[in-house]
Amino acid sequence: MNKFQVTILGCGSAIPTTMHHPPSQLVDLNEKLFMIDCGEGTQFQMRKFKIRINKLHSLFISHLHGDHIFGLPGLLSTLSMLGRTADLHIYAHKEISILIKPLLIYMGKHMSYKIELHHLNPDREEFLFENKSIRISSFPLKHRIDTNGFLFEEKESPKHIIREMIDFYQIPVRQIAQIKEGADFITSNGTLIRNEILTSPGNPPRRYAYCSDTAYAPEIVPYIKNADILYHEATFAESELTRAGETYHSTARQAAEIAKAAEVKHLVIGHYSSRYNELGVLLKEATAIFPNTELAAEGKVFDIYPHIRHYCTDNR
Amino acid sequence: MNKFQVTILGCGSAIPTTMHHPPSQLVDLNEKLFMIDCGEGTQFQMRKFKIRINKLHSLFISHLHGDHIFGLPGLLSTLSMLGRTADLHIYAHKEISILIKPLLIYMGKHMSYKIELHHLNPDREEFLFENKSIRISSFPLKHRIDTNGFLFEEKESPKHIIREMIDFYQIPVRQIAQIKEGADFITSNGTLIRNEILTSPGNPPRRYAYCSDTAYAPEIVPYIKNADILYHEATFAESELTRAGETYHSTARQAAEIAKAAEVKHLVIGHYSSRYNELGVLLKEATAIFPNTELAAEGKVFDIYPHIRHYCTDNR
Repeated sequence: MNKFQVTILGCGSAIPTTMHHPPSQLVDLNEKLFMIDCGEGTQFQMRKFKIRINKLHSLFISHLHGDHIFGLPGLLSTLSMLGRTADLHIYAHKEISILIKPLLIYMGKHMSYKIELHHLNPDREEFLFENKSIRISSFPLKHRIDTNGFLFEEKESPKHIIREMIDFYQIPVRQIAQIKEGADFITSNGTLIRNEILTSPGNPPRRYAYCSDTAYAPEIVPYIKNADILYHEATFAESELTRAGETYHSTARQAAEIAKAAEVKHLVIGHYSSRYNELGVLLKEATAIFPNTELAAEGKVFDIYPHIRHYCTDNR
Repeated sequence: MNKFQVTILGCGSAIPTTMHHPPSQLVDLNEKLFMIDCGEGTQFQMRKFKIRINKLHSLFISHLHGDHIFGLPGLLSTLSMLGRTADLHIYAHKEISILIKPLLIYMGKHMSYKIELHHLNPDREEFLFENKSIRISSFPLKHRIDTNGFLFEEKESPKHIIREMIDFYQIPVRQIAQIKEGADFITSNGTLIRNEILTSPGNPPRRYAYCSDTAYAPEIVPYIKNADILYHEATFAESELTRAGETYHSTARQAAEIAKAAEVKHLVIGHYSSRYNELGVLLKEATAIFPNTELAAEGKVFDIYPHIRHYCTDNR
């Protein structure tokens, strides 16, 4: 089974603290790194957690508030100093050009690689990227400025062939790949053996959903339905419900309500307001609604396995 | 005597490491903070070392390489979120506008304070700022792009009045301030008492010089002559002399040669290349030429006292 894991690089919010870094995380599918958001210091967090920067495939920026983007200049510049040659695709709202273009003009002649900007659609779900293992799409969130969530969906994996059937029907090696993809088999005496007899289903495709920043928005539920892990912002505790509404952020309880409605398997909360030195209150309020909740923390790695509890490593 | 100290926030160079942060330091004169350079993560370093961000007076940017400026967006944005109202003066080369203006346009309507950009003159020494305690000037360094060093000079402090003379000549309190500034005193019977009899000299003005980034450049010596502390970049060891020349950086020995020629009291070296995990070689090569050398390190505080050894606190 392919590796499919999420590493938290930062799960703080706008005002920095000594406890949390600004938002950034990495989705690692099969040794390709997809970065979501890039707050100031993201490149240092990658070094700290010994992540190989040359495995970075592309960047997905949820919205253009500073705490989600101020790590871009440093990261883009370091990639060039380290001699990256592969194009770097950045998915972000169109105003990113205002911020990035001057930087690129300034660094331009020294850049070792090319940046391709793709504009996110803030109004509806949209397909962004796929390769043989993953499909990435974006969908609208509800925040003060255009903001999108992201869904990372593993593609259907090939069926498992049943070893005993290979022996029993003497299936030639050259036909195994086709059978894994769904083909039937015809024996030497012309009998058709249906694929369902020869195979068991492949691993169910896994899904990771990222929703930050956003107010409580039940309309996002269809996009993230049945995700294996949902990362949802939980900036505030319930005592700050009014403030959450005013600033278009969510409380931990609201994050849990979304997780419950979407019937996800696990909820990870983050994007903590700087006012919380101790996060127990957020976890308590979320687990009251959705027990399978964990707190994000810098350096935590969430391994996504199908139908079983995910595994979380704390690398701090 | 006024407090006059330098806090190192970062003393690494272009490629980040887990050991050193990109360049930034704070000159604290009498509770006003003058920041020199602002690499990525500078605002986090200020938090880490418990420095009150609201004491920040102005910024001095030596040159526009990324490692010296990528902390600006985050710092400027945080100052606004914390409600700063005082104008912030930034001294930098004119191309800073290309990088900063789009950011200001983008954040513009939300900014709580005004930024005033002042362009540095890359070709000659120039006065930048003064108040009642300090005078700040810039001078050209020798790097791949326009780069300036900075000199922070304390102003002449008032003379010390000799207490015994106040009693002996029955000097009224209202005349003491004038006498400290150099006035003579006329006794009730008309005798003139010369100022030199009534006073002893004030504390000698202290000077801090910052030279980074720069190739070995003896022509800077007149600007930094007799400084109490000289911070000079020492990117490389002597084994990388050729590389130092090609990249317009200095070796530790060259930094020490400058310190010796300028007859400064103390040398602090920094801007270490990412290749050095262990800095002993740099210190050894510098002290062979100029014994009074110290290694910069994140969190180190250099207190500048006149004519006596400075005091260094390690806050890491």
